[in-house]
Amino acid sequence: MSADELAIRELVKKWLDASRSGDVATVLGLMSDDVVFMVVGREPFGKREFAEMSRAGGPVLADSRHVIKELQVAGEWAWMRSYLEITMKMPDGKTAGRAGYILTVLRKNRDGSWVIARDANLLVPKTG
Amino acid sequence: MSADELAIRELVKKWLDASRSGDVATVLGLMSDDVVFMVVGREPFGKREFAEMSRAGGPVLADSRHVIKELQVAGEWAWMRSYLEITMKMPDGKTAGRAGYILTVLRKNRDGSWVIARDANLLVPKTG
Repeated sequence: MSADELAIRELVKKWLDASRSGDVATVLGLMSDDVVFMVVGREPFGKREFAEMSRAGGPVLADSRHVIKELQVAGEWAWMRSYLEITMKMPDGKTAGRAGYILTVLRKNRDGSWVIARDANLLVPKTG
Repeated sequence: MSADELAIRELVKKWLDASRSGDVATVLGLMSDDVVFMVVGREPFGKREFAEMSRAGGPVLADSRHVIKELQVAGEWAWMRSYLEITMKMPDGKTAGRAGYILTVLRKNRDGSWVIARDANLLVPKTG
């Protein structure tokens, strides 16, 4: 496995760990300033909206299972196809599950670190 | 605009033109053999399933409006973020609209042509 691929796998792990522990600053540091998140049923949004949502006291990540199906590095860019199952803890204490595939574009910083640049997230409520 | 970017824009135009005219063979020639399509509410599928669906007499593309929001070439790979609105003609003669964002990964063939390799399609039924 290449150093870039290892770095990207580590980024994903850090992202999920920081999300679970509510460490918004770390999560924000793992995305590019011009990041675009695409999700089902709303307009794409960027880093500022991500930060606002994260700090608004909404759902919090309780548990996750992330499987990287494919990862391709192309110079300063990379793309990753993955499957994610999450359990969110809602403000009222109840939990809600979501699952689905994600196509992610990543970019390499000048210092060699990687960040998430574009993310199309097909997660929908988990049934059953 | 680079030759690669022009070729990718031409590929998108060809895809939509061929879809509208029911030219399945041309559409299939514009995707890689290992293509993976990700859409809302079903498992990812490949070229064979795409061909089967296209030939099954289901909905046919009647009209489309495709806007490329971003296009980034990285050597033999490229990614594109776009917005697509389509009107489908259903087997019963009625029409149905869908709209949403798409994140696409493209690959360059050895002959210099480009094909669609991965596609995360967030289109949902258009309301209003």
